[in-house]
Order: sequence, then C-alpha cells, then structure tokens
Amino acid sequence: MPDFSAFDAYIDAHQERFVQRLADLVAIPSVSAQGGPAMHQAAEAVRDLAASLGLDARLVEVDPGQPPFVLAEIGPADASRTLIIYNHYDVQPPEPLELWDSPPFQLVEREGKLYGRGTADNKGNLTVRLSAIQAYRETLGELPLRILFVIEGEEEMGSPQMARFSQQQAALLKRCDGCWWEAGGVNDKGQSTLTMGLKGLAALEFHAKVMARDSHSAAGGVLPNAIWRLMEALTTLRRPDGTLTIDGLAEHLAPINPRDLELIATSDWDEQGMLEAFGITELLGGRRGKEAEIQFLLRPCMSINGIIGGYTGPGGKTVIPCEATAKTDIRLVPNLTPELVRELVRAHLDRRGFQDIQIRESEMGLRPAKTDPDAPIVHAASQAIQEATGKPAALAPNMAGSGPMYDLCDVHGIPTIAMGVAYRDSRGHAPNENIRLSDFLTGMKIAGRFFHQFAQS
Amino acid sequence: MPDFSAFDAYIDAHQERFVQRLADLVAIPSVSAQGGPAMHQAAEAVRDLAASLGLDARLVEVDPGQPPFVLAEIGPADASRTLIIYNHYDVQPPEPLELWDSPPFQLVEREGKLYGRGTADNKGNLTVRLSAIQAYRETLGELPLRILFVIEGEEEMGSPQMARFSQQQAALLKRCDGCWWEAGGVNDKGQSTLTMGLKGLAALEFHAKVMARDSHSAAGGVLPNAIWRLMEALTTLRRPDGTLTIDGLAEHLAPINPRDLELIATSDWDEQGMLEAFGITELLGGRRGKEAEIQFLLRPCMSINGIIGGYTGPGGKTVIPCEATAKTDIRLVPNLTPELVRELVRAHLDRRGFQDIQIRESEMGLRPAKTDPDAPIVHAASQAIQEATGKPAALAPNMAGSGPMYDLCDVHGIPTIAMGVAYRDSRGHAPNENIRLSDFLTGMKIAGRFFHQFAQS
Repeated sequence: MPDFSAFDAYIDAHQERFVQRLADLVAIPSVSAQGGPAMHQAAEAVRDLAASLGLDARLVEVDPGQPPFVLAEIGPADASRTLIIYNHYDVQPPEPLELWDSPPFQLVEREGKLYGRGTADNKGNLTVRLSAIQAYRETLGELPLRILFVIEGEEEMGSPQMARFSQQQAALLKRCDGCWWEAGGVNDKGQSTLTMGLKGLAALEFHAKVMARDSHSAAGGVLPNAIWRLMEALTTLRRPDGTLTIDGLAEHLAPINPRDLELIATSDWDEQGMLEAFGITELLGGRRGKEAEIQFLLRPCMSINGIIGGYTGPGGKTVIPCEATAKTDIRLVPNLTPELVRELVRAHLDRRGFQDIQIRESEMGLRPAKTDPDAPIVHAASQAIQEATGKPAALAPNMAGSGPMYDLCDVHGIPTIAMGVAYRDSRGHAPNENIRLSDFLTGMKIAGRFFHQFAQS
Repeated sequence: MPDFSAFDAYIDAHQERFVQRLADLVAIPSVSAQGGPAMHQAAEAVRDLAASLGLDARLVEVDPGQPPFVLAEIGPADASRTLIIYNHYDVQPPEPLELWDSPPFQLVEREGKLYGRGTADNKGNLTVRLSAIQAYRETLGELPLRILFVIEGEEEMGSPQMARFSQQQAALLKRCDGCWWEAGGVNDKGQSTLTMGLKGLAALEFHAKVMARDSHSAAGGVLPNAIWRLMEALTTLRRPDGTLTIDGLAEHLAPINPRDLELIATSDWDEQGMLEAFGITELLGGRRGKEAEIQFLLRPCMSINGIIGGYTGPGGKTVIPCEATAKTDIRLVPNLTPELVRELVRAHLDRRGFQDIQIRESEMGLRPAKTDPDAPIVHAASQAIQEATGKPAALAPNMAGSGPMYDLCDVHGIPTIAMGVAYRDSRGHAPNENIRLSDFLTGMKIAGRFFHQFAQS
C-alpha cells in the first residue's frame, strides 16, 4: 500500500480547480430528454477534459445524430487489471424552474454545498474520477491498472444506444475485469454506500383518447372523459400502498436472494433521513425499517412521472377533455424485463376492458443487474472506503435506481460496484440538486485507493 | 297576430349586416377565465351596439375592476309585460389552439356555418335578440312589451357577481314577468328546443401535495406520489359509468318530477347525433335512450376538466412529483347546492383518509333552477317557435348546462325559458365552435314572434 498523504494533499490543494472543472460541465445544459446542440457540446467538453488529463479520449457514434459516447483510456496496456468506469454527461430536465434557488446550469457554492443540475447525477462523480486520476499520476506516478471510461449521453433517457454500443465494443469490454458504476452516495453516518446491482426500468406512457373532440362539460353524465378513463385504468395497476397489482407480475419475480437479505439485516437504512429530506411523517403504505428497505431496494415499483389532460390554465373551463396522457416508470428486479412488463400491463388492461388505452413504450428500457456480493471488486472498493474515510463501507445489495448495467457489464460477465458522492439531500432529478464539497473531495481520495486495491485484487 | 312577412323579409335582407355585427363581437377575445382589457372592451361594444339600436344602455359595476354588467332597456314603460333577456359577452378559453381550422377570434363563414369562439355561446344569441328588436321596430313599429337585457361578462366563470347584482337590482327585476335565458338550440329535425330549467354547478379544484419536494423515481416504492394520491382520491367519487358515489349525495336528491318524466317520454333525444358528433359508439356506462336522457338532463354528474402534475414535456423524466392538481365541475340538480356538495365531498374524502387532499372551491358556484312547464311564458315561446318554423317546439324539462338562473330569476319568482341557435355540432367550449347561418336568421324570426306572444300572455 503506497503512502497516499501527498495524493490527499494534492486533492485538498487543488480543490478550486476541481470545482471549476465541475462548474464548466454543469454550465452545459445537456438535457437528453430535450436534446439540442448542448448534447454534442457536453460530449466534446468531456472528451477534451479527459484528453487534457492525459487520457486517450475519443467520441464514438452509435446512432448517427444521437449523443455520442466518450471512450477514454489510460494506464499500462499490460496491466493485470482493467477497470471500466461508467458515467454519463447528460442530465434530467431542470423543470420546475421556479423552485430552484439559483440557476440550474450555474454551479453555485453555498454553505459547503455545490448546487446545480448534474452535480449529484452525474457530472460530480465524473469530475471526481477524472480528477483522481490526475492526482494519482501527479503524486504517485503511473497508474497501477488500466482504466476505460465509458461515458454516455442518454442515461437519463434509459440509455437507448447502450446495447448496440456494448455489442460493437464487445472485444474491448470483454477484456475488462470490473466496472465502477456512475452512482452512489454517503449515508448520514458519513459511510460511503457500496452497492452491487440495480433495478431495471420500463418507461410506459399511457394515452387515453375517448372522443373525437372535447365537449362542454354539461354532457359530463353521458360522454366519456379521458382523464377519468386514464385514472380508472392506472389505479388498477397499483395498490395505494405501492404494491404492484399487475396480473401475473408476482409469479415472474425471483425469490429474494438470502445473501441480499443478510446485507439488509446489517445495513443502516436511513428511514428518518428520508422522511426528513422529503418533509413527510411516514413512508408509502406506512412501511418501516427493514420492510421499507426491502421494498425500496428489492421489489418492483411504479411511479407516475407526469400527467396532463384538459384545461390547466388560470381560472376554470367547463370542458370534458377527449385526451389525456400519463408518463410512468416501472422499476424492475431480477427476472423482469421491460418487454415482459409491457406485455403484462397490456394484457392486464385488456382483461379489464381498457383496450382503448394506448401504451407507448419509450426506448428507455433497462434490465435489472446484479453482482455477487463476494466478488473481489466489492472487497477492493470496501477496503478503499475504509482507508480513505476511516469508516466501513455501508454495503447494500442493490440500488433503487436504474441504469444500463446489464447491457454494459452483466452481458459480458463483468462484476460491477457503485459508489459516489451524493448524500440524502442531494435532490437528484429535482430542483436544487447539490453535493457537499467535502464528499466531492473525499470521493477523489476513495478513488485513488480503489485504483490501487483493484489493481491488487 | 300581426303580419310578420315584412319582419321576416327585413331579416333576410339585412343578414350581412347581422353577421358583421356578430363578427365584431367575436373579434374581441373576452375570455373571462383569463381576464384582461378585452373584458371591458366587449362590455362597451355590447353597450354601444344596444344604444345604436335605440336601447337605453349602460354599464353597471358590481365588483370594481371586474367585468361589468350591461343593462339595456327598451319598449313602453307602461307595457303590461316586461321580459328579461339574459346573455353574456364572455367566452371560454380558445385552447387548444392547434385544433381550430380558422383563428378562434375571427368569424369565418364556411358552407353556411359561422365559425368563431362565442358564435354558439353566447355572442350569436345576443346578436340575434338585439337584431330582432331592430327588425321588429323597423317593420312592425313600437315593441309590444318592455325588454330588459341583463348581459354579464363572467358567465363562463360561474357568474360570481350575479347574486350581488340581482340583490342590488331587486326592485327592477321583481317587476319583470319572465326571462328568456341565453342558451338553447335546434335539434336534428329542425325543431327549436325549449327548456325550463338548468343544472347548478360546483367547481372544485383538488390539490395533492404529498412531499416537500419532488424525488428521483428510484424511490417510487417508498415515497408518496401526488398523482397516484390524487387519482386514488378522485376515483372514489364516481363509478366508471358516471354515477356519483359521493357519500350522502343520493339522500339529498329530490325525486325526479313526474312532469319532467312526461316531457322526456315524448322528447326526441338525439342519441345518434350525439354519438356521431363526438365520434363514439356508445355513451358513458353504455346508457341508451330515455335512460341516457334522464342521466343527461336530470341527474348530477362530475367532470374532470383538467389535470396536471409532474413532468409533461418531451421525452421522459424519472421523477416522483410532490404536487398534482385536478380541476373538476359537478353539475347539480334540485336540492343540491355548491356549498352542500363541497361539504359532502370533503367529508367523503376525510372518511377515507384523504384529509391531505385540498379542495379549493372557485367562485364558480351556481344553484340549479326550474320553471313550471305549464307557465304562460312556456306557452308563448312554444307558439312563437311553431309560428316561425312551422314545427312544434321540442320541449325539454331541463338543460344539462348551468347558469345563474337561480340568482337572477328563481330568487325573484321569475319564470324562465331558454331557446337559442346552437345545433348538435356547435362545439360549444371546444375548438371550431360554430352556428348555422340559417339558425341565426330563424332565431330572429322566432324572437319577434316571442315578443308578441309574451306581451299577450
């Protein structure tokens, strides 16, 4: 184990430069759901940043015209270990804008926190990892392993190009020994969370069209209403406590892995922190403790992300809307796939007479992924966290979030861990997204040690 | 009975002038839900039009700064009968704009139809009635009765100033013998519909706020979602077939009047016309024939006019929205009032644990109103329709729509009828609102005869 004191000092001494680096990325409004020139601009900025730090960086196009991947490699070609680092340069839409205390695409530091869209998800982690490479090489010399950054621009859209990218780059990817995933955070005890899988995602948009045109609502007793219709369909899919009631879904679920339950039994599920962060007095369905944690990490769930129909302007309008739309996402656990869930939902609605409700599946489909909690990469990351922070890693069997881990890693048999610099009030995907400066710097210190540990593994 | 042939010829000869008059009113975007200078501009235009036709016309302010009433009087002060004519100069919002085939605030004539916001509701009827007075006086001389126009600017908002206006003008109104209401139409057999009452209206906005802020939808299994919550609450209020299930509502309903059922038994319910107009194959809940007509005219109903929550932009956003809002209206039949219904809904939701769902009642509250089908004004209107069109009136016990009839008329004991120039494809409150030019002219011919018949009644 080399001496990391110069490495740590370098990070502390150069924090302003690292924050500026993050600020430069945050300033590019790379909202993949909305597209536009910012996507390519962000890809180029990331490529140029990587190149400026000595990486062999290039853009890789999969679908022409769509946001490109950035591939960036560094480290000895003959290293015994190669680590994929997966990140993304795209962000979620900033809306609702009026709830931000400072402009979303301007990094603002307030009370030790760095605010801006993408700070937590995912430009902060990307900056941490690239900067750690710089600190390592400036203070410890040659990297002890080879690193391959895979940085995409459509993670927030469900990574529609990832499966093809992964297929095209199979020769390169298959040679890798592990993957460090983009996300992760620090719990309220200051422990970095270390996770070994994530949920899949099916994004379904439901559309009701019940008449050729809107009607005056005087006819509300005899004409169909698209909003009522959509509500009647959707409320059959979930109980108010969050349990999914999609016909046949339960039969497809894999039994929960006993090793996962062991990790949950010893984990610190920060229920109180979650309640406080969202200003609520109980979790959905009144679930508490381990039961809530199992629901959070290991069971499927369905969110309505947005709904719109009829008149939503000022005042009132006595109208019966002929159309209404709801965007939803369903988080998937092992044995569920986006295709299967879509089929089950379709059949479920048809069986109840909702054949008229259209289901539009976005390209945002992701399979769930899992890594063995006893894999060497888990041990290496765990060691790095302990060494950098003086505290044990908080092991969790799964992330509640989703990502293209199956397509990038599982499909090639690559074990994957996730750790990162968010915390419970990071407000990912929401207004006032932020990370703590201290986590940002600690994240780099963990990264350097992880490079070392994984090289030895 | 005077000879109306010169009167009819005058109307036919001056149709271009009458259409231009309507065009001038349609051109003013007097959307009361959105307010602005167009409201006062429309009031002045109506006052000036009435004055130019010889009426004693003035603006009457109730709430300073809110759209004023136009009061316009004409006819012998010592006439044995005084008729109130109620209309409104405000219109519904034109949205969604993209579904209009021509600009909403520009009167366009296509294939014998006059398109534009307000043509059917209510600037067409207003123009018809004022123009009929002109034609009567130009061809038949002095009016045989006194007429008092009450023209307001917030009918589409639920007439929030009407109760106070009616109280302030009680002395004037109490002297009146009957009222001709603003709305009405022509059925597919060319018969003018004659109605004797209307439904009340409670406009309730439901608001769910379940967390302090939005969350990443990875937590969809454990955090509350405002859209799910709002749906779960609203779907307890109504069965999919349209029957209201608000606790206690049924007990308050007056039994349906046998005289109303008699009228329904002999009426022409144009079910096929309604199906065709909206491009549907069956009415809500599969109701047909008289059962559908009773539901339409004599039972309460609830419409969701609009809903919004979460991300509704392009692409997707994996978010759990903390807030969602639905605008609704409930149409009321005798014995129901807006206050009672609001209380029942509140208690209904509270009983089911939905105390967190806020209910915001707009000022848009209207009581139901009913006139005796055997009142002399009904007979006078019925005669006028027969004489002008050669066809019997289509009597209906009630309108499905709402208006401030209780506050303006019932409260002073004034019997009220409604007849007008809409038809089944008029698309009131919707894009491509229109009336037929032929109905517009026939409406004037009925009006002149009604003035005569009511004066004799």
